[in-house]
Order: sequence, then structure tokens, then C-alpha cells
Amino acid sequence: MNTPLRLGIAGLGTVGAGVVKIIARHGGLLTQRSGRPVEIAAVSARTRDKDRGVDLSPYGWEDDPVALAQRDDVNVFVELMGGSDGPAKAATEAAISAGKDVVTANKAMLALHGQALAEAAETAGRVIRFEAAVAGGIPVVKALTEGLAGNRVTRVMGVMNGTCNYILTRMEHAGLPYDTVFDEANKLGYLEADPMLDVGGIDAGHKLALLAAIAFGTQVNFHGMELEGIERISIDDIRHAADMGFRIKLLGVAQMTGRGLEQRMTPCLVPATSPLGRLENATNMVLLEGDAVGQIILRGAGAGEGPTASAVMSDILDIARGTRVPTFGQPARTLTTAPAARVSTAAPYYLRMELEDRPGALAKVAMVLGDAGISINRMRQYRHARTTAPVLVVTHKTTRDALDHARKGFAGTGVVVGEPVAIRIEDI
Amino acid sequence: MNTPLRLGIAGLGTVGAGVVKIIARHGGLLTQRSGRPVEIAAVSARTRDKDRGVDLSPYGWEDDPVALAQRDDVNVFVELMGGSDGPAKAATEAAISAGKDVVTANKAMLALHGQALAEAAETAGRVIRFEAAVAGGIPVVKALTEGLAGNRVTRVMGVMNGTCNYILTRMEHAGLPYDTVFDEANKLGYLEADPMLDVGGIDAGHKLALLAAIAFGTQVNFHGMELEGIERISIDDIRHAADMGFRIKLLGVAQMTGRGLEQRMTPCLVPATSPLGRLENATNMVLLEGDAVGQIILRGAGAGEGPTASAVMSDILDIARGTRVPTFGQPARTLTTAPAARVSTAAPYYLRMELEDRPGALAKVAMVLGDAGISINRMRQYRHARTTAPVLVVTHKTTRDALDHARKGFAGTGVVVGEPVAIRIEDI
Repeated sequence: MNTPLRLGIAGLGTVGAGVVKIIARHGGLLTQRSGRPVEIAAVSARTRDKDRGVDLSPYGWEDDPVALAQRDDVNVFVELMGGSDGPAKAATEAAISAGKDVVTANKAMLALHGQALAEAAETAGRVIRFEAAVAGGIPVVKALTEGLAGNRVTRVMGVMNGTCNYILTRMEHAGLPYDTVFDEANKLGYLEADPMLDVGGIDAGHKLALLAAIAFGTQVNFHGMELEGIERISIDDIRHAADMGFRIKLLGVAQMTGRGLEQRMTPCLVPATSPLGRLENATNMVLLEGDAVGQIILRGAGAGEGPTASAVMSDILDIARGTRVPTFGQPARTLTTAPAARVSTAAPYYLRMELEDRPGALAKVAMVLGDAGISINRMRQYRHARTTAPVLVVTHKTTRDALDHARKGFAGTGVVVGEPVAIRIEDI
Repeated sequence: MNTPLRLGIAGLGTVGAGVVKIIARHGGLLTQRSGRPVEIAAVSARTRDKDRGVDLSPYGWEDDPVALAQRDDVNVFVELMGGSDGPAKAATEAAISAGKDVVTANKAMLALHGQALAEAAETAGRVIRFEAAVAGGIPVVKALTEGLAGNRVTRVMGVMNGTCNYILTRMEHAGLPYDTVFDEANKLGYLEADPMLDVGGIDAGHKLALLAAIAFGTQVNFHGMELEGIERISIDDIRHAADMGFRIKLLGVAQMTGRGLEQRMTPCLVPATSPLGRLENATNMVLLEGDAVGQIILRGAGAGEGPTASAVMSDILDIARGTRVPTFGQPARTLTTAPAARVSTAAPYYLRMELEDRPGALAKVAMVLGDAGISINRMRQYRHARTTAPVLVVTHKTTRDALDHARKGFAGTGVVVGEPVAIRIEDI
């Protein structure tokens, strides 16, 4: 019998408990698949007594995750506490210093400190694996790092925050405004303690930044990302988009351009009949494009106990099997620092604005767009029993710069009420 | 600089040439990702002079693939010749005996000899990898073997023969009969030299048998599969199915049941709005279900130079990185010999038959179904300006046995003309 692989699991929330359950339930299967027993040496969490639906008595206990990370009987430190800094980072660093491999689900920590942690791990001859940090149970990190290793990756796209997709699809199907559905989602426990992580696009942005690093061989650069949440999406936008054959998704796109690395996590209109457009509820979907493979699509549950624990187990089993792949698919020191593209690729945009309902208003808007160099594909004015009328414009391909220019122009017309909404159309 | 990984590539058809191109084009990238140069030591094919769009002059040449497999300067034998036996098998065996790792795209060879080859490789301490054998560029072998390694896999399903899906969707969209579209596909070069490999479901069946072995820890058992091709699917069936909200797919399903391992590769009706139902043209789609991860779906090109070469490269890079996973995810000697389920799980069925257009005909059919214990969900008779009328029946859940019983009954009624068509409805 080969020597067991012994885990120290820090964090016993939903995912941590899920990992413990799988190991308790599938011990024999895991041994068969990895060639060695996978055992839990010890665990750590904030409170010891809480009922987590699993028997923790067979395992050692540490109050301090750093102490857990340093235990002599631990080979792999499994970090499931979360938080970009604080105990998660301290314990991860301690684990690496103590010569342990690390498995983590912590997208925030890696998005902000991934380069330093990866370099430290490689110096120590250890690996950091993070399948569970991106798109839950979908093995997208593996598909990109290993499955597409023979490709020059051309683009990574995806819907990677289930909560946002739940909110957007629920608004559409129930005809409910954002605030109502937000409250529903909160009551259902779908939102992070800080909801901005979800609805502000930050959580999804962290995930995209990690995939972009692997895809393009660049250092993680979360701060170089164009980031916009779904808080300003109204039920009207969703309806108007549907009228034109689109659905609104919080869509991540990363691609290398002549102007640098473009990373966006923003609401987009996508064709309603495309695989992304058809994505319902909390499901995640990632599209990977490579020069040889073309486009592959992966779809599955992006969160939840089982799916996320499944991803953690995949990393653990890889380590048990002896697989050693660098954190971001190539040695951290060889990752380049590609400049962030200052302007994103041109695209058509959907614009919605409220106009004073008086003669010449529409002409003024059209003139502003023309001055900004934006040509109009479709324009539609709705009749309403109020003093303002919503106007929709679908532009031909244009840039954010031109749009910002137009925004300023709108303010000077005296007929545009409030701030226009502009949503990129990703015609995939 | 680490020692290079040196390949011997046997077979320079579309896929082989594609692999050579990727290595020539992406040398630096591959070295960065795998930590060592990936080089071609020598190649082999039936004819040396043919123009394959790649410069082969830098590489050694062997007329005999067995000699290639045994070369001292080869670490990995890349078998891209095809054919379940003959040179492919001889060279693969020679490579293993000579201590080489093997990468192959050969589903037929592995579906028929996978157990023996895997055992030989493991005895020799070598690996056999076959990502390219299943679903082209989609990294489904990796997703299942590694990504879902923490799961008890409950079911594997998929559309894994692009040619069949092309034929079925083309029939539907163009309203053309099977024979016409078959000829088209043949002219387009979509069909194997022996078309039965495609339209008879054999090629897709080979793929499913390989996935089932990984999923359930069982020895590959292609002969235990229920296999039916698409040759008997008529444009009428496709239209009737569409009327009822279904599309016809050549669908593979593998699941472990109380009665043994169920493996089917047969035409099925699937809901038109499901991800499988929406699959167009030559695209492949695989659904993997695990007890932790739930259902994940992978979609992409199932064939072609780039996608298949991408999969071959994934295996090569894994070997270059030092990844060693047993052929079927666990040591070949630990794979069990699960009995094949004699009868497949009960399901609703679509039946189409031609009835003599005379009083009492329909009643006779209904009576036969009742006698066979098959209850009717929907029944529809079409009017035609001829002496027979097509009748469609959608049954409630029933078994193949009951259907076979009913078939015999139909023959005795004297009103059923020809052989009824029965297609399983997979309500996923």
C-alpha cells in the first residue's frame, strides 16, 4: 500500500463540509483512482462545536489555520476559508513555507496575490491548485491549463457568477424589478456577505482574471479589468433586449489584442438563441477558444456544496496521483506583464435613455451620436403616458470612448433626462 | 534546460499533420507550458512523398511503424494510424514493450483491446493516453478521469459522432431523405472509408465504451452495448418528432444499474429545447453526471484536424509535464467485469407504423399494445392519399422486451404493413 496523502482542511463551511463528506463516503474509490489513501489529518474552523452534518471526531483539530498548515502530518493544505487576505493568506503562506501543497477555492486571494503565492510555491517546489475557485464544479481550470495546452488561446468568455444570472433570469421570467429579486436572492442565501462581490461583478471578475492568466501566460491583473455590475439593469432593459432577440448577461471576456490584454466583466446583450443567451438560473458557462480546438463550451453548476467540493477533490486527487502543473500553467516567473488594453474592442451598443416628450428631442439625440462618430443601426421610441418617453438605440460598432463622448453631449441637449444606460452587445 | 520529450508520430493523415503543425508553430509555448522542449524525433506513414502541407525534412523517417515505436530516440509513440488491429496494434504493443508511453486517437483499438493494452502498459510502467479518441477537441476524457475523480459517476451521455448529427440535422433543415444526405456527406468526405462505422453507430459506440470504463471502473465492454445506427431514420420520423417537440439524435447513454452496466448507442428522441436537442451539425456534446458535481455539459468540435490535434497535444503535454494517470483512471487490474444489463431501463417510445386504411385497423394495433402491457400516451393517425396510413404512437414507459413482444403481435394483425419503427424517448 502506498503512503497516504494527508490533508489539513481549513474552513468547514458548505464546501469544507462537502469535502469531508466525499472523503468519508468515497474513501475506497478515491484510493483506487489515486493509487493511495486520501485521509484527513486535521481540520480547522472558527467554531468547533457547530453541527456541520459530518462527524469530525476522527480528525485532529486546530483552532489556528496557520498551525494546521504547519502540522507535520499534513501533506496538502486545503484552504476553504475565503477572504483575499487575513487568515487565508497567512495560512497559505505558512503552508508553502512548511513545504505543503495547497488546494484552494479562494478566487479573491489568488486574483490579488496569485503571482506572489505562485512564485513562493514554485520556489518551495510546491503546487497551488484552484479548480474550485472558478465556475464551481466545471473543470474549466483543468480544461484550459491542460486540455488546451497545445493551443494558443484566443479568447475566454463566460457567465461565472450564478447569483447574477439567477437575478437576471428571474427578473425576466417573473417580470420583477431588480430590487425585489435582489431581496429574494438575499433571503435564499444566494448572496455573499458583501453582496457587491456578486452583483458588482467582483467575484466573477476575480475568476476571469485567473483564467486570463492561464490563457495568455500573463500575471494575474484583476485591477486591469473593466468591471461593471448588474445593479443598473432594469426590467425595462431586459424586456427591450428580449424584443430585439437578446438577453442580458453578466459576461466576462478576456482576449489578447494589439492594444494589450482586454479583460471585461460587464453586462452584455447576447443573442437569445446562443448557448450563453439560453443559460438559465444559477448555471455557469465558460467558452474557451483556441487556435487549434476552435470553441469549446463547458456548462454546469457554478456553486453549491457538491459541485465546489467536487472541484476541490479533483485538485486533491491530482496531487495524490503525482500531477505537478504550475499554478497558472507555466512557471510563475515566465508569466509576462501584458499591459491592460485601455480601450476595449469596438462593439455595437444598446442605449436606453429617457427623452423629454417634445418636438426635436429625437433629432438632438441623433445629432449627438453623429458628432461622436456613432452610427445608428436601429432606433425606437416608446409611447408612454408620462412626460418623458424611453428611446432605444442600437448602434453600429463603436468604442467606449465614443460613447463617453456622446454621454457628455446628451447632457448638453437639455432633452435627455437622467443618465442613459449603455450596454455592450456581444454578438457571439 | 530540461531534457526534451521526443515523439515518434505514426500516421500522417489529417490529425498527424495537424500535430506536426502545432509542434512546429508553438514550440516555444509548449516548452514554457511543459517545462521541456517537445520535439519530433521521427515520423512514419504509408507514403513518404505525399504533400501534407508540412515540412517533414527535419524529422527521421521510418517506413515501418513498429520500427518507429522501437527507436531509441523516441520517448512517446503517437499512434494516429487507426484501425483496431494490424499495424496500429502491433506498433502500440511494440512501443509499450520498448518502454515508451503511448498517445493514441484510436477508439476502435482501445474499445476492442483496451484492457490488454492498459495492463501491458502498466506492467511496463508506461501510460496510454487517448483524449483524441473521444469527442475530438473536447477534453472529456480528462474531465471524466481527473475533473470528476471525486465523484461516483452516475451517468454518461452524449452525441459523439458528428457525421450522424450532421446527417440528422441536415435531413431536418433541408427536408431531404436519408439516402440523399448520406450521399452528400460522403461527397463532403464526412464518412469513414467504411460508412457503417459512422452511420451504424459503431464509432460512437467505441467512444462510449471507453468513457463507460472510466466512469464505472469497469473493463471496456464494447460487445455488451446495445447498438443501433441511424440508417432507418426517415425524414417522416424527424418531422413527426419535431411536431411533438422532439429531435432525433444518435445518443449514447451509459449507466450502472441494479441489472448491470447499461450501455446504449441508439437513435433517441430528445426534447427539442434541451441542450442535446439543440445540437446542430457536426458538433459533439457530452453530459457527465456525478453524485457531487451534478450534471456538467461539454460541447465542441468532435472531429477535424485542429480539434483532434489539440486533444493529442493535451496528452503529449501531460506526459511532458510528468502526469501519470492510469489509462482508464485506475489500475487496469482493478477494473471490474460488470455484467452487461440484458435489458435497458424502461422508457417511453415513439412508434411509427403503416396501417392498412380500413375499419378496425387502429383498434387491432391498440389491442396488441395492451396485450404487451404497453400503455399509450398519445396516438395519432395521418391521412394520406394512398392505401396505407401512417400511425404514430407515443407510449408510456415500457421495456424493449415488451416492445419486441408487441412487434410480433403486429405481424399477426394483418393490418400493419412492413416493419414498425420504434425509437426510444430520452426525456432529459
